[in-house]
Amino acid sequence: MKNTFGHSVSLTLFGESHGPAIGGVIDGLAPGIPVDPQAIRRLLDRRRPSTALDTSRREADDFRILSGVFQDKTTGTPLCIVLPNQDQRSGDYEKNRGLARPSHGDYAGFCKYHGYEDYRGGGHFSGRVTAALTALGAILLSALSGIGVSLGTHILRCGGVEDRDFVDLKQDIAWLNQAFFPVLEESRGEQMAAAILAAKEAGDSVGGVVQTGVIGLPPGLGEPWFDSVEGLLSHALFSIGGIKGVSFGAGFQLAECRGSQGNDAMRMEQGRVITLTNRNGGVNGGITNGMPVLFQCAVKPTPSIAREQQTVNFLTGENAILRIGGRHDPAIIRRICPVVDSVTALVLCDLLAQRFGTDVFTKGIAVCNMD
Amino acid sequence: MKNTFGHSVSLTLFGESHGPAIGGVIDGLAPGIPVDPQAIRRLLDRRRPSTALDTSRREADDFRILSGVFQDKTTGTPLCIVLPNQDQRSGDYEKNRGLARPSHGDYAGFCKYHGYEDYRGGGHFSGRVTAALTALGAILLSALSGIGVSLGTHILRCGGVEDRDFVDLKQDIAWLNQAFFPVLEESRGEQMAAAILAAKEAGDSVGGVVQTGVIGLPPGLGEPWFDSVEGLLSHALFSIGGIKGVSFGAGFQLAECRGSQGNDAMRMEQGRVITLTNRNGGVNGGITNGMPVLFQCAVKPTPSIAREQQTVNFLTGENAILRIGGRHDPAIIRRICPVVDSVTALVLCDLLAQRFGTDVFTKGIAVCNMD
Amino acid sequence: MKNTFGHSVSLTLFGESHGPAIGGVIDGLAPGIPVDPQAIRRLLDRRRPSTALDTSRREADDFRILSGVFQDKTTGTPLCIVLPNQDQRSGDYEKNRGLARPSHGDYAGFCKYHGYEDYRGGGHFSGRVTAALTALGAILLSALSGIGVSLGTHILRCGGVEDRDFVDLKQDIAWLNQAFFPVLEESRGEQMAAAILAAKEAGDSVGGVVQTGVIGLPPGLGEPWFDSVEGLLSHALFSIGGIKGVSFGAGFQLAECRGSQGNDAMRMEQGRVITLTNRNGGVNGGITNGMPVLFQCAVKPTPSIAREQQTVNFLTGENAILRIGGRHDPAIIRRICPVVDSVTALVLCDLLAQRFGTDVFTKGIAVCNMD
Amino acid sequence: MKNTFGHSVSLTLFGESHGPAIGGVIDGLAPGIPVDPQAIRRLLDRRRPSTALDTSRREADDFRILSGVFQDKTTGTPLCIVLPNQDQRSGDYEKNRGLARPSHGDYAGFCKYHGYEDYRGGGHFSGRVTAALTALGAILLSALSGIGVSLGTHILRCGGVEDRDFVDLKQDIAWLNQAFFPVLEESRGEQMAAAILAAKEAGDSVGGVVQTGVIGLPPGLGEPWFDSVEGLLSHALFSIGGIKGVSFGAGFQLAECRGSQGNDAMRMEQGRVITLTNRNGGVNGGITNGMPVLFQCAVKPTPSIAREQQTVNFLTGENAILRIGGRHDPAIIRRICPVVDSVTALVLCDLLAQRFGTDVFTKGIAVCNMD
Repeated sequence: MKNTFGHSVSLTLFGESHGPAIGGVIDGLAPGIPVDPQAIRRLLDRRRPSTALDTSRREADDFRILSGVFQDKTTGTPLCIVLPNQDQRSGDYEKNRGLARPSHGDYAGFCKYHGYEDYRGGGHFSGRVTAALTALGAILLSALSGIGVSLGTHILRCGGVEDRDFVDLKQDIAWLNQAFFPVLEESRGEQMAAAILAAKEAGDSVGGVVQTGVIGLPPGLGEPWFDSVEGLLSHALFSIGGIKGVSFGAGFQLAECRGSQGNDAMRMEQGRVITLTNRNGGVNGGITNGMPVLFQCAVKPTPSIAREQQTVNFLTGENAILRIGGRHDPAIIRRICPVVDSVTALVLCDLLAQRFGTDVFTKGIAVCNMD
Repeated sequence: MKNTFGHSVSLTLFGESHGPAIGGVIDGLAPGIPVDPQAIRRLLDRRRPSTALDTSRREADDFRILSGVFQDKTTGTPLCIVLPNQDQRSGDYEKNRGLARPSHGDYAGFCKYHGYEDYRGGGHFSGRVTAALTALGAILLSALSGIGVSLGTHILRCGGVEDRDFVDLKQDIAWLNQAFFPVLEESRGEQMAAAILAAKEAGDSVGGVVQTGVIGLPPGLGEPWFDSVEGLLSHALFSIGGIKGVSFGAGFQLAECRGSQGNDAMRMEQGRVITLTNRNGGVNGGITNGMPVLFQCAVKPTPSIAREQQTVNFLTGENAILRIGGRHDPAIIRRICPVVDSVTALVLCDLLAQRFGTDVFTKGIAVCNMD
Repeated sequence: MKNTFGHSVSLTLFGESHGPAIGGVIDGLAPGIPVDPQAIRRLLDRRRPSTALDTSRREADDFRILSGVFQDKTTGTPLCIVLPNQDQRSGDYEKNRGLARPSHGDYAGFCKYHGYEDYRGGGHFSGRVTAALTALGAILLSALSGIGVSLGTHILRCGGVEDRDFVDLKQDIAWLNQAFFPVLEESRGEQMAAAILAAKEAGDSVGGVVQTGVIGLPPGLGEPWFDSVEGLLSHALFSIGGIKGVSFGAGFQLAECRGSQGNDAMRMEQGRVITLTNRNGGVNGGITNGMPVLFQCAVKPTPSIAREQQTVNFLTGENAILRIGGRHDPAIIRRICPVVDSVTALVLCDLLAQRFGTDVFTKGIAVCNMD
Repeated sequence: MKNTFGHSVSLTLFGESHGPAIGGVIDGLAPGIPVDPQAIRRLLDRRRPSTALDTSRREADDFRILSGVFQDKTTGTPLCIVLPNQDQRSGDYEKNRGLARPSHGDYAGFCKYHGYEDYRGGGHFSGRVTAALTALGAILLSALSGIGVSLGTHILRCGGVEDRDFVDLKQDIAWLNQAFFPVLEESRGEQMAAAILAAKEAGDSVGGVVQTGVIGLPPGLGEPWFDSVEGLLSHALFSIGGIKGVSFGAGFQLAECRGSQGNDAMRMEQGRVITLTNRNGGVNGGITNGMPVLFQCAVKPTPSIAREQQTVNFLTGENAILRIGGRHDPAIIRRICPVVDSVTALVLCDLLAQRFGTDVFTKGIAVCNMD
């Protein structure tokens, strides 16, 4: 389905960095969910470039809801949000036309679109498209929150600095949902910011690892083949530009340990099945087991850097040296967190709607699931 | 779509470990592709438990093609293969009914299927189902090979031992496709086997990391949002039981380096655009760039171990101690390689058919893509 | 998705008329639904050729459930049924190889499958495949019946004879579900049978119109664009070979009348909204309105007739005269009714599962829908 | 997928009659297709209410392309068009809130959306949404026309008047594509217009039957189960409000004749297989056979009529009398023709892209299909 993801609840994205607007459509979300423009604003602000750590392109991220909302609630019909593009300086890009930015989608996109692609600012490959995703994500997150599912993402590692792990997920998530720089240990955030600025000054960029935690999901979500929780989440997450790895629970570390160390022992606690550790990240056999869902995404360093790079001009077929003008982020790791949250919310809304029906978002899981 | 994956070329799986049979259906594959029972046999043999490193369950993996093949070629209509189950000892499982094997799908499956699931031997969650996937995978791999796309998977790390990296992909892939123990450096394989046996003797199990390389793909495959090459591959790969992480190119290591180190410089070589390194694993912006596609999967240690484990009886709601009988693998890392190949072949067949049409498999990419 | 239909509950078909077996897979159906082999047998018997009105090919329609059923109930995992082919006389077809049977899929199939298709007996285009659909349909119908949704199909017109319209739907449906010759007025059935035999004696065939009624559906099913109830039902119904028209409620007659005649006046009745007439067939704006869903399918006369026909040999590119041997139905109108029921059940199960979640089939609509 | 249709080429619709805007997104269409705003304008004008035969609501149908077009050609990324709503008089609807318009989607929508729907002017059920579909349809039609596929729709019957049948399809289609009142025999159009006005004066409305012809399609499109050409077309066509029947070729008349009358005899003509008649509408076994594709849609009379009607107030649960104010069409039969063309174009683009790959629209079928 290309630019659409999800079956029961789906999301479609459109737009190019330097076209008239970007936007997206949510379909299949239940009627009656409150839509709060302030909540959309807040999530957009967490993604919006606004500091010395970010690109100097400044977009107001004004948004307009074109459909699917009536009297401040979802109607249940397709909900379209559009964000006009404003601060475009296409000239920055015209002069580099044909010069592939290494490790960016320019050349791959040229092969796919045969030169008809809107190459200005990365076109449809631009991170700008994630603003539309984030605006819609705010509504999905609010639908989840209404039934007791909450989630948050922090920068686990960046520039050689490591944040602390989740401790009290409920509190940590609440903190992250209002944090401008999403780390659990503020001093680590300051060290990360310093590392990002150092890279920027060196004409370079950094990547990092972000970690997401989800609480409130019922056990029994997902399908063993092929729509496992891990499969669906990773499918959506890898759409985010720059993500090159996704792992669940202890992830690649699990590969290094023995079964007796990797298995999560199980216990009854207050009539509920829990695991004493959560190295499997809340998913067994592709299905949620009632424990928090935990995963990590590896984010590569922003490929657009100020330093000279060896590249090719794919229009002329010649080798070339690239000196990027334009405006770029020395790190997208801070700004990617609300995007990861949005994509996660999409997958979870879809899974919940498939399992419990459309009305789960207004009636709640307990009611839909009652025995 | 649950147990079906793919749009243009799709695959559906069915069956339980101790039911009458497992099997699957491929749909959308072009007519006229040669189907060689020996090739199916060979791939099945690479997955089949047969040594002291594997479970002692011995299945002949006899298979029968029920449809979609006529005069030794695909017809283009749905191709169903069925493999009867033979060596079942369900009694092994009956006595542990309700006792969740930690980090296995038992409890999550119970929550999903409300106790109606066929719990014997893991039921539909069983690794046994991958035999059907492998039988179908052999046909998909042969379709790819007919148009010059080949791929192979090796054990990159297992039990603290590391295989060498790919050097000459064409040669390495050819080697892996006939290797019983899929490593590039045979002595490392022997060390890995020793580590697996050591774990087995300790009543324990090990995991590992497998790495896959694909050559021959044209640039321009994949969709930026949401059907990126990474997204589709990971979606399918995470369906394989035990995989807890998927990464492309340098994967999580990319997160630790700067842009100037992570970017792949580009050059013209014999009129073709190449990259001097391949840290992005052949995919930029979600689209193939013409370089080999490279990815890793983290495989957790087999959760079924002989040691006593703390668990619960989810039927009675009581804590319990689990001593697993049954027959289990101390490591599935060897047997998972042809399964990873099969899943990869499915995703690639689907991407190629979407891009170039159904007939790509008989006419070739060059013809379909000609300018 | 080609040979798969449905999202939340889906069905995949495979097999050719003269291959080893035909079969199909249901996926997404709730766990815990009773599976009664006798009910499958009964529905198969209503489709099975067995009288002078039918083809003389006699298949036992033995079936085997390979997966998805445990202790006589659905497990919730994919349910595969296979029916071996037995009474094949492929020789009948070999001699006509290349001679397109007019208005049959031979030539269109050749264009699609480039000559690799299994041409014997129509291959995958054969009505034989509907036996697999019917076996699975029996399970879907039983899932619906468990939550109070029932449906039946009668021959409305055949060979110039017209059956009476539905009067008391509940009673009429009960009658049809056990009728061997599905008409509401038995004497009309006898006249139809006579007309069919007359056509047969003339080396010819007849078509007809079948009408289906569904009761027990809640209002609010379906999606305005594009998954309207009419759209989904017609999509699935047109898959049945020979159906060339589908209409809802008064159908094409609605096109001839004025709004004041075509509109269904609405009234309250015992606290429920009803319409005084049902010319819209229970669907408004693509959504069920709580009235019975009613539709008609136009079935063309069986294209295989004994009379000589002008045709071509598409292998040699020459004009030719066709004299069909083989064994054929002078009318499929009787046998198509359980197939229409099965396809209808598939669409309804899918719609219900999407709206109310997987568990609707065990918990019921009222519980899932409660306010 | 609710408001999205198509796999390889898909279309998503959004918007409500009295919301800020309606619009839609095409995805998967090849890069490089010329986009001519005048062609969009012309198709919109054929749908736009503008005469005494239409509703008095007057929308300028201004449209804005937000994405997917660069330098007047498609980029291959999602193409979004938005049409602001302008001439809204919501007050007309407020006073009838809760009063179900008989045979309209009001009550069914209320059951689905639980009262959160935007009830003004039919909301998302409004025919207004078809303006977005038509704007996108113009682009799809142009993609088809670029590879030699053309199609047109005429009013076959309306108000007791019958248009002549297609004679020379190429010429007839060319005529229809520029006709304001789409009939093949102008005098019949005048009689139809008179019948529509007579109904209007009587406070009533009329329906009719439209017929569509498609030429230039290659044989071999479609899938036997379930994505037959008939199934896909009908699925999409039934989404159009007011369509209650779809039939192919001779349609319901086929049901009345014998095989010897209904079969289309086949002949070689200039090296090509043709049929002497086309009672099957160019489709056999669900697959195109190379003859023109022909189908009819039954359009019910507009349910909104000026006459008093018996209805219910579904908010209060009381019987009521409805006198509709607002502005309505005495017939939508003229305006529906470009909408039918648009929907048909969507299905055909999707089928062609699936069969021959994305590039079929720029390289042509012959090239993609060459042997």
